Amino acid sequence: MNDLVAALANVVGAQYVMHDSASMAPYLTDWRGRYTGRAMAVVRPGSTQETADIVRICASAHVSMVPQGGNTGLCGGATPLPDGGSVLVSMARMNRIRTVDAANNALVAEAGCTLAAVQQAAEGGDRLFPLSLASEGSCLVGGNISTNAGGVQVLRYGNMRELVLGVEVVLPDGRVWNGLRSLRKDNTGYDLKQLFIGAEGTLGIVTAAALKLFPRPQATATAWVAVPDARAAVDLLSLLRDRCGERATAFELVGRSALDLVLKHIPAMRAPLAGAHDWHVLVELADAFDGEALDGMLERTIAAAIDSGLAVDAAVAASIAQARAFWALRENISEAQKIEGVSIKHDISVPVSAIPDFLQQTQQALMALWPDVRIVAFGHLGDGNLHYNLSKPGAVDNAEFVARTQDVNRIVHDRVAALNGSISAEHGIGQLKREENARYKSEVELDLMRTVKRALDPHGLMNPGKVV
Amino acid sequence: MNDLVAALANVVGAQYVMHDSASMAPYLTDWRGRYTGRAMAVVRPGSTQETADIVRICASAHVSMVPQGGNTGLCGGATPLPDGGSVLVSMARMNRIRTVDAANNALVAEAGCTLAAVQQAAEGGDRLFPLSLASEGSCLVGGNISTNAGGVQVLRYGNMRELVLGVEVVLPDGRVWNGLRSLRKDNTGYDLKQLFIGAEGTLGIVTAAALKLFPRPQATATAWVAVPDARAAVDLLSLLRDRCGERATAFELVGRSALDLVLKHIPAMRAPLAGAHDWHVLVELADAFDGEALDGMLERTIAAAIDSGLAVDAAVAASIAQARAFWALRENISEAQKIEGVSIKHDISVPVSAIPDFLQQTQQALMALWPDVRIVAFGHLGDGNLHYNLSKPGAVDNAEFVARTQDVNRIVHDRVAALNGSISAEHGIGQLKREENARYKSEVELDLMRTVKRALDPHGLMNPGKVV
Repeated sequence: MNDLVAALANVVGAQYVMHDSASMAPYLTDWRGRYTGRAMAVVRPGSTQETADIVRICASAHVSMVPQGGNTGLCGGATPLPDGGSVLVSMARMNRIRTVDAANNALVAEAGCTLAAVQQAAEGGDRLFPLSLASEGSCLVGGNISTNAGGVQVLRYGNMRELVLGVEVVLPDGRVWNGLRSLRKDNTGYDLKQLFIGAEGTLGIVTAAALKLFPRPQATATAWVAVPDARAAVDLLSLLRDRCGERATAFELVGRSALDLVLKHIPAMRAPLAGAHDWHVLVELADAFDGEALDGMLERTIAAAIDSGLAVDAAVAASIAQARAFWALRENISEAQKIEGVSIKHDISVPVSAIPDFLQQTQQALMALWPDVRIVAFGHLGDGNLHYNLSKPGAVDNAEFVARTQDVNRIVHDRVAALNGSISAEHGIGQLKREENARYKSEVELDLMRTVKRALDPHGLMNPGKVV
Repeated sequence: MNDLVAALANVVGAQYVMHDSASMAPYLTDWRGRYTGRAMAVVRPGSTQETADIVRICASAHVSMVPQGGNTGLCGGATPLPDGGSVLVSMARMNRIRTVDAANNALVAEAGCTLAAVQQAAEGGDRLFPLSLASEGSCLVGGNISTNAGGVQVLRYGNMRELVLGVEVVLPDGRVWNGLRSLRKDNTGYDLKQLFIGAEGTLGIVTAAALKLFPRPQATATAWVAVPDARAAVDLLSLLRDRCGERATAFELVGRSALDLVLKHIPAMRAPLAGAHDWHVLVELADAFDGEALDGMLERTIAAAIDSGLAVDAAVAASIAQARAFWALRENISEAQKIEGVSIKHDISVPVSAIPDFLQQTQQALMALWPDVRIVAFGHLGDGNLHYNLSKPGAVDNAEFVARTQDVNRIVHDRVAALNGSISAEHGIGQLKREENARYKSEVELDLMRTVKRALDPHGLMNPGKVV
């Protein structure tokens, strides 16, 4: 092991290799604190060449590697296993924006750039990089690519996968694949970049990416809408897209208990509407210009929705401050839940049209066993993606309930599977959902995944124990 | 061989297996007439199960297979090799639209549906399926997926790859992978569908797909704009997207010689503008509604372009008929070229910002050798994708010139490679560009492609001699 550390230090400099437990600690526990692993060393390359040299050295020594970005993942995908047999490769030092090409609507960023830095670089070229997440100040773009990150603008702009034009990857044997093309169209064989997007570092280490940029919207309109039920929310989405087309950039569902928790725990939050409603939707439109016209369009659409019974009340934000206040309600749900206590969390998706059935059937099945279960449902309805978190009032009751996570997962995920949905819509698999995933994937699909893994990483050196 | 035919007939019925040369002939020559192959049999399955049975039978007999859609491909990807060692599997009978889910903005179509049938099914649900190609009445959606088809709306909606939510595939050993999920977000492991999109049938046979739908635009505005040079066209694109945002759905460049050929050979075509201009752009905006506002927006943008020297003259279509007439000029370029005679064709892409350099450098290099070369350049400038076709006036001269295709390709493709572009932007590789592709791809990338091919099709049974 000392030989290995020396060899790594020889590549990156001794100051960028850690092997005492105190310095390594921040890298070895995941953000949620669910997983703590061990590592032979933490190494921090400063360039693609250094990354390649590290991988070659580890591969020669038959030592596995765990790539890590901002360590903000929610499934333990960047935390090494407890066996301590891996070297953790932190990509944070590779944080250069290599190029911004506004006329081509593209930039090239290294894996260690924060998402916020990428957004800023786009803005510097008068363009938008639309990926937006709660952790954007600290998550790294290499991690966003490796987990195919989602967030609040997927409805309009797609997931990270749709935003990547090309990647540079260090393969498990240390070779560098330069796939950094910034092209909209390229049909010269298999689209290899797709293998590495969402692979959670199990097939290689993404060192840089060419990313798509968009015109910057100059105007937004935001509304908080109370809807009678989830089916009305789905129909409201159709109405919105019929009337406003692709201006619809966000359509976030917020259930009553989610709003209540925010109002209870987060200071200075206020309900936008009088009275209590079971379901709310946060709607945002964006356009190249002309905010007044956009507000008018949103108001007319909501009026039509109220006329036809798809909405019961609504507030259109009259100022940027008010729009931010609406968004703060949505963005503080996770924090409010954390303060309230532990819960059983799910990150599911189904076809948008199946959301009402999912909610109704799952609630029924859960309440048959736990009549007082508290369902905190919220999220990206426009993408069919809900965060569906469950707890019970009262600490003792809740502790008992949480101990039955497996049974709860079975109920929730069986409903998801029956509706041809996904048990991990945007957070990935990591360590957290590997077994659960194996339960719901077909044998053919699991075998295809293993085939890809074996083909690209025959010695199983990349991020062992994750995904497959 | 008779055993094999009998076994295939046993699966699909004798009327759907052909093995005499007259019945097989239409399947064995590609649309352009460049390639003619031979086959042991042509078999036409009517279901996924029949396709799987056919593949299992062929695999057991160690007989390779060539999947074929509408036989409209431009690179010979669906034409078997002359060795006659393959069974051709025509997917045309699998032509059911399985489901249309307007609320989820998705439909499921079998591989044998024409693209036009998919567009119509979407319209039936008051939605848009945006892929649009010259051959849409006869190309099949399985072929569109297998070639990652492009076309004229990529600027706004992406290539076929971006429009596919899920696929059903018969693997090379006859197993069926049901990946027909209609989800916007699904991070449960490797995104396996990406392997089969654009693989030209070399990794399996796509039998069905879940496809994305969009709100139907109710209004379009169309203009024919003369620009002083290619750089002005690129800047006009930026201006257009800044001012009109994502309304910009098409931005097609038409060079002077392309327009001249259409006016010469196609009846009833008229130049939209007085005077001769070296470069034109066909611009289209689309929006959910309100055509007048859209026309106004386009007119103001063009006025600003003329003020700043990015455009010299323009006509905004005053009627749908006039818009169609502008489009007819663009769409008849291929036909006009065909009438004029043979030419050396290229389907290239570079970063949009590099288009002016590509045009200038390549013209200079070509004219140094052939001062009277005629360059017909046109296409999807918004995607950085040009069709760049070369010929010489005079049949004898031209025949000599065409005989030097290899030298011409070297000049054109070397420029493309130097600008980090693609030698096949939207048509694929097939047989036509396999060697050329191997010349320009890095050894690492070629090796990755071969690794994927070996992993999924270890016995080399799927569409031999294509892509890799």
